[in-house]
Amino acid sequence: MFITLEGPEGSGKSTHGRRLARWLQREGCRVLFTREPGGTILGRRLRRMLLDRRSGRIDPFVELCLYEASRALLVRRVIRPALKAGKVVLLDRFQDSTWVYQGWAGGTDLKLIEAIGRASTGGLEPRLTLLLDLPARRGLARVRHPNRMEAKPLSFHERVRKGYLHLSRRQPGRFRVIRADRPIEQVQQEIRKAVRRVLR
Amino acid sequence: MFITLEGPEGSGKSTHGRRLARWLQREGCRVLFTREPGGTILGRRLRRMLLDRRSGRIDPFVELCLYEASRALLVRRVIRPALKAGKVVLLDRFQDSTWVYQGWAGGTDLKLIEAIGRASTGGLEPRLTLLLDLPARRGLARVRHPNRMEAKPLSFHERVRKGYLHLSRRQPGRFRVIRADRPIEQVQQEIRKAVRRVLR
Repeated sequence: MFITLEGPEGSGKSTHGRRLARWLQREGCRVLFTREPGGTILGRRLRRMLLDRRSGRIDPFVELCLYEASRALLVRRVIRPALKAGKVVLLDRFQDSTWVYQGWAGGTDLKLIEAIGRASTGGLEPRLTLLLDLPARRGLARVRHPNRMEAKPLSFHERVRKGYLHLSRRQPGRFRVIRADRPIEQVQQEIRKAVRRVLR
Repeated sequence: MFITLEGPEGSGKSTHGRRLARWLQREGCRVLFTREPGGTILGRRLRRMLLDRRSGRIDPFVELCLYEASRALLVRRVIRPALKAGKVVLLDRFQDSTWVYQGWAGGTDLKLIEAIGRASTGGLEPRLTLLLDLPARRGLARVRHPNRMEAKPLSFHERVRKGYLHLSRRQPGRFRVIRADRPIEQVQQEIRKAVRRVLR
């Protein structure tokens, strides 16, 4: 069972991911919760390059390559073995983030992103993608110390949100859109309901 | 005028590149000589990741992504501006290396590599590619402290050589194959002759 969390900056993916992981454990599941980029030594190094504001301007195509490198490693070394061992894998960001941030909002060719994505993921697709949706401005207002991606202009983050909503309409079977500008408990309850449905 | 040096490990690309650059300067050219991966801050960091033996096993697809990221930066920040300023750009490895090392020898899909390569280079092609060719075993014997790529098995390096020769037959107008298992002076003279021809 492979579940991903997606959404614009400040939508609460990590908070809700942590809570969801703890709840799943209480329900008796073995859970692996990790995030992208990261999860491997090389992935963490790439994460620092990508998110450190001192890296300065990095072209979306370069970002694309670094994210896909980190993803390919994570899939092969961490996700596949965990799924094979029967764990629920909960991932904070996956290929949809790249499609939206570097493609839809960043301007890199979407067909190229999809081709590279098929190679990096080896065709692995989440059973469920929880899209935590809220207006870009409200999400950014929650971010205290913006990293390199979060520090991009508001117009970029508005395109990110639109890209996600576009994707979710294209693949309604996989996506579950959850309004994230509500009290944490309410959002978490809706998340658990969606997860319970696919776990059955 | 954009010229690349290609060839298996130990074929003498950097030695001949340096000599060729000095000769071109004596002939009155303004020259930029650099190498891949590298040439930018992020590129040098990626170089360390890719070539450091302590990085351990890195899948060819992951290598592909990191090389293409480094290449895209180098093309945009270094090569294009230098060409625009009228310099002769001399580059130790370029897209052909990726096609051969990660594709032909490494097993990553060649069509995917070509698609990513078109994006990373923005369609920039060398006017001349000097392929320093020699048997893999003889090249490796020249390497004192093998890095992560050089430390791969002999069979890998034999596939690398064959891949290069295949490419050179596919694009005879761009490639000039130079037998590199001869005295340095002789190889360098043949290199200069090939370069003089395209500079005219």
